[in-house]
Amino acid sequence: MVSRTGTGTHTEETEQAVTPTASKDGAQNVAQKLISEHLLDGKMTVGTEIALRIDQTLTQDATGTMVMLELEALELDQVKTELSVQYVDHNLLQTDEKNPEDHLFLQSAAQRFGLWFSKPGNGVSHPVHQARFGRPGATMVGSDSHTCAAGAIGMLAIGVGGLEVAMAMAGDPLYIQMPQIWGIELTGELPDWVSAKDIILEMLRRHDVNGGVGRIVEYHGPGLASLTAMDRHVIANMGAELGATTSIFPSDGAVLEYLKSVGRVEDFREILADKGATYDVEDSIDLSRLEPLIAKPSSPGNVVPVREVAGEEVYQVVVGSSANPGLRDFAVVAETLRGRQSSPQVSVDINPTSREILEDLTRGGWLFELISSGARIHQSGCMGCIGMGQAPATGRNSLRTVPRNFPGRSGTKEDAVWLCSPETAAAAALTGVITDPRELGFDYVRPMLPKTGSINTAMLLPPLPPAEAAKVKLVKGSNISSLPSFDPLPDDLEMPVVLKMGDNVSTDEILPAGARVLPFRSNIPKIAEFAFSQLDDSYPDRARDAGPSHLVIAGENYGQGSSREHAVIAPRYLGLRVVIAKSFARIHWQNLANFGVLALEFTSPEDYEAISQGDTVGFSGLREALEHGPEVEATLGGRSIILRHRLSPRQAAMVLAGGRIPYRIALAKNEQAKNKQG
Amino acid sequence: MVSRTGTGTHTEETEQAVTPTASKDGAQNVAQKLISEHLLDGKMTVGTEIALRIDQTLTQDATGTMVMLELEALELDQVKTELSVQYVDHNLLQTDEKNPEDHLFLQSAAQRFGLWFSKPGNGVSHPVHQARFGRPGATMVGSDSHTCAAGAIGMLAIGVGGLEVAMAMAGDPLYIQMPQIWGIELTGELPDWVSAKDIILEMLRRHDVNGGVGRIVEYHGPGLASLTAMDRHVIANMGAELGATTSIFPSDGAVLEYLKSVGRVEDFREILADKGATYDVEDSIDLSRLEPLIAKPSSPGNVVPVREVAGEEVYQVVVGSSANPGLRDFAVVAETLRGRQSSPQVSVDINPTSREILEDLTRGGWLFELISSGARIHQSGCMGCIGMGQAPATGRNSLRTVPRNFPGRSGTKEDAVWLCSPETAAAAALTGVITDPRELGFDYVRPMLPKTGSINTAMLLPPLPPAEAAKVKLVKGSNISSLPSFDPLPDDLEMPVVLKMGDNVSTDEILPAGARVLPFRSNIPKIAEFAFSQLDDSYPDRARDAGPSHLVIAGENYGQGSSREHAVIAPRYLGLRVVIAKSFARIHWQNLANFGVLALEFTSPEDYEAISQGDTVGFSGLREALEHGPEVEATLGGRSIILRHRLSPRQAAMVLAGGRIPYRIALAKNEQAKNKQG
Repeated sequence: MVSRTGTGTHTEETEQAVTPTASKDGAQNVAQKLISEHLLDGKMTVGTEIALRIDQTLTQDATGTMVMLELEALELDQVKTELSVQYVDHNLLQTDEKNPEDHLFLQSAAQRFGLWFSKPGNGVSHPVHQARFGRPGATMVGSDSHTCAAGAIGMLAIGVGGLEVAMAMAGDPLYIQMPQIWGIELTGELPDWVSAKDIILEMLRRHDVNGGVGRIVEYHGPGLASLTAMDRHVIANMGAELGATTSIFPSDGAVLEYLKSVGRVEDFREILADKGATYDVEDSIDLSRLEPLIAKPSSPGNVVPVREVAGEEVYQVVVGSSANPGLRDFAVVAETLRGRQSSPQVSVDINPTSREILEDLTRGGWLFELISSGARIHQSGCMGCIGMGQAPATGRNSLRTVPRNFPGRSGTKEDAVWLCSPETAAAAALTGVITDPRELGFDYVRPMLPKTGSINTAMLLPPLPPAEAAKVKLVKGSNISSLPSFDPLPDDLEMPVVLKMGDNVSTDEILPAGARVLPFRSNIPKIAEFAFSQLDDSYPDRARDAGPSHLVIAGENYGQGSSREHAVIAPRYLGLRVVIAKSFARIHWQNLANFGVLALEFTSPEDYEAISQGDTVGFSGLREALEHGPEVEATLGGRSIILRHRLSPRQAAMVLAGGRIPYRIALAKNEQAKNKQG
Repeated sequence: MVSRTGTGTHTEETEQAVTPTASKDGAQNVAQKLISEHLLDGKMTVGTEIALRIDQTLTQDATGTMVMLELEALELDQVKTELSVQYVDHNLLQTDEKNPEDHLFLQSAAQRFGLWFSKPGNGVSHPVHQARFGRPGATMVGSDSHTCAAGAIGMLAIGVGGLEVAMAMAGDPLYIQMPQIWGIELTGELPDWVSAKDIILEMLRRHDVNGGVGRIVEYHGPGLASLTAMDRHVIANMGAELGATTSIFPSDGAVLEYLKSVGRVEDFREILADKGATYDVEDSIDLSRLEPLIAKPSSPGNVVPVREVAGEEVYQVVVGSSANPGLRDFAVVAETLRGRQSSPQVSVDINPTSREILEDLTRGGWLFELISSGARIHQSGCMGCIGMGQAPATGRNSLRTVPRNFPGRSGTKEDAVWLCSPETAAAAALTGVITDPRELGFDYVRPMLPKTGSINTAMLLPPLPPAEAAKVKLVKGSNISSLPSFDPLPDDLEMPVVLKMGDNVSTDEILPAGARVLPFRSNIPKIAEFAFSQLDDSYPDRARDAGPSHLVIAGENYGQGSSREHAVIAPRYLGLRVVIAKSFARIHWQNLANFGVLALEFTSPEDYEAISQGDTVGFSGLREALEHGPEVEATLGGRSIILRHRLSPRQAAMVLAGGRIPYRIALAKNEQAKNKQG
């Protein structure tokens, strides 16, 4: 057993803002290299809009059906990216015809538009993409907030809304505001029973769920040497939980070793920070001083040492998901359970990542150990992480290696989900209570992984040749409706506050996922009935009663979490035109703009306090306001309050037009009209 | 490749009624031996009521929550059987809190009432029960229509409604009408690519889904020598699809070998038919003349040779369920797929039976082959067989090794499910079209099975000692409501025909299973909204509009299929008091009586034709009629029609009282009153 050295393990290194500029003497960090290589427009000045060329895209099935409908609306023929892949990993349960019909639709759309198609059962998009297609130095956008996981191998990979991905497939650049680059220096080596998950939990413990907003997290330093590419995948993946634009690691020897193990050494390219490279913000973590950590219900930011909550009864343990997808993550659980039985009170649910990893788990004998110790083995996919199966009983503690524990995301409204490492999960599986794995009383067994893993690409269907693709008809099941059309933002609005919310409201609360809701992802009128249901069941009715327009009020970090654009489209369908919040999460803010909902920030905290649900808020002359500066004036009970928007002129025009699709259609019409006159 | 010898393979052996009596010179067949050993009341005369002592009971989660509520209503302390086991195998998907909370309720109820508890993930009740608890010569009732599978090892195992099982646990006998014993002589040996499933499909081809009504099927003859206990399990299991009371095999050398393989040789007892034993009805099958068979959508009786439908496109293949649960059934698929890839157009879904079989599949390398060829591996349980996952797309062909393909049972309303052997399923997985496996063009590989399988009982929680059990509180989630109370049958009724149906309506059509409905299995008001939804969505509304009472009309074999008593309780809750049909399936008929719904048969076929939905039917003096004979007179449009009931005096009294629970309560009150007077 490993001894603990007092309570000093968590001394907080102070975050230092070193320099506001991005480089010094031309020396670049890894993020700057990738941005400058792909910069199509703008300057790398923090906070200003830049346009990036996008090499690859990733879509999954929960968001992908909408993306494919958008491609259809844009009349795209073939994707213009180097590579685009449509995965099916979320909605695998198939309790009626809706999910399988969406899979058929996606397969036909992938064939029609020139994408790769990853069949249901092939695995979770992020690790599969990294193994089969990941290329150091490439840019990628994905309609999944954990797209950033590919930063593990030196990609600049950003989770965005579906429409952004559709636009990238259509050849448009990605527009973002130039983020700060946040250097995290890693030193030392992890002790036994402590793993990569504890590193990202330490980041969340220090910085909470909005600590990364407006930043790219770049890891560097001597501590990297002991972290494999799959360890880095764990860390990069959950950078999403910090609210970061993305996370990135250098492409070094560990990445070379990884690409060898997946049979793609030819795709390796070394990308290291230049000597003398600096970061806009700096921080460091001594890995040797970390201990097992756990995020308490119901936020990834509620992190405490496991020992502080040891002894709490556990009802369920779930291992897997994109946050702990590597062979090691399952093998270490198998080694801990080997020859032992899980507690009779605990359901141990194993959710393998992919077909290839399940093959390796089986071949290595680890799967046998897991089954033998009482684990339930589920099909490869996202499962419990997205509330598609293994929902816990109300209020019972569920320890999971997944990235998120927002309220209700498990599928159970009043859930109690904790986030931890595979080691901590395994310890609880054995004892039936939350247990610091260092207290198990036996030695840590480091699994001996094979140097090369299984390579089996038969469930990845390649794009069709364009001539064949053009003949493919989209296979639309009865649950796939068209996109509703969205009208321009009115110049004057007088409308009620239908909902007032607090801080850190996630997209899981705005529009839940889970088996009850996700099957309607291609059916906006139906899915709108679930809008805000996690917070207030009466919202859809009250929104309809409010007439054609209404607004909602929120606190800090509004819209954190999943990238799903349904969290905008559904309330927009019910009449949402304006959201006023203290601050917004990046992807959701972009989604609001894309679908013509005006996102405004309070300039004075007192105004948030002064405004109540049911109040009426008025706006007049919105077009002029948005075109002429960041300030927007509103009236509330006879007095005026000043709000602020962060839209670029391009974005402001888009919101005024009703969103990105009508905006693009209008641009095309103007173009045609000009051509006629010319 | 095996050659086929013309079209003569399916010559129908004529069914011969040999003798109406059950024995000759005292020589008994196996069924007679078990019945006479357990006979508490009545005589073994075909068609008369007998009472049987019940040794074991089996309940699963879909029906078990209701059984546990019934035990609670009966104020039972400890079960009075030799052994009772509560399994959790149906509702494993856990898309919200309802299923896991039912699991906790069942675990607490098992502890409270002295049952074994098989944890979620331990496997499908029938094969697990046979392996861990099955005892040749024992009787068993189970609240699952496939309970009869245990006939494979010489048990008399009968699927009944939940209330019958609750009564058996409370120490009451099982009352049934003495069935005919139907001897099936097996000769010859099965050719390559043909297996046990094809034997039971041949029975269904010859005799359809009501060919076994009122009969126990007893297999005998030299052909048995080549059939293992698990082969026999396949055949006994799907005896339910023939409508048979149960199926039974002798307990011979194959059973001894089986009990050795599961580590319970001490439970072996030889039970063979006496020399000179006869059967009420006789038939025979020459196994060497069988070929691969398949049941077309949407009845297990639609059986044709596979070659007749070869070439039809296949969208999905599902292997597993209680109808093909043995290690062999998965291993033969793995051997057929070994080194090959499944068709890109097909989803191959593997549903392992149990933890022990999954261990053996893993250890034998077969699981690896399945994964490697593109199969999706699901958790051990019933899954697709009961519509809990892997529902197919509308109208797309799904080939399954499951026992049933009633319309909508897969979870998809307009499904196209075919039933076949693992060999035929594997062939379609490879080719993407229905394929006679003999045409695959390579040799059949018979898997080499281990002599002893995995033995791992850690997920089977034993009963608590009675003193501890008495202290256990039932853990009731918010979705577990009490049983509604049922009033006595009125003496006079004047009520509308709310629904008129055709032949062979299954309980899946009366009250569907599946992920949308089953979670409400402990919530009658809610589940009643789904009554008859597969046939007519408007039934619940029209039933309520009809006032306090209504009736429905049906054709032959009404209520075939699943034993679920919700198919009575739900329409009864909506006011159903009488069903008039041409004939009834056994279990559903018993369930109707148990919950106070009067089941009547037409005496003249013209009356079925004459009656229409919306007509009004009148009854008067029902009490006198039921107490004095089999005939009941009804009025329809001014004229009188004669109907017939099959209730014993005991059953008639029960129906008049409103069902078995109010009847038992009334009996107990009379007893008390007598005691007071005395």
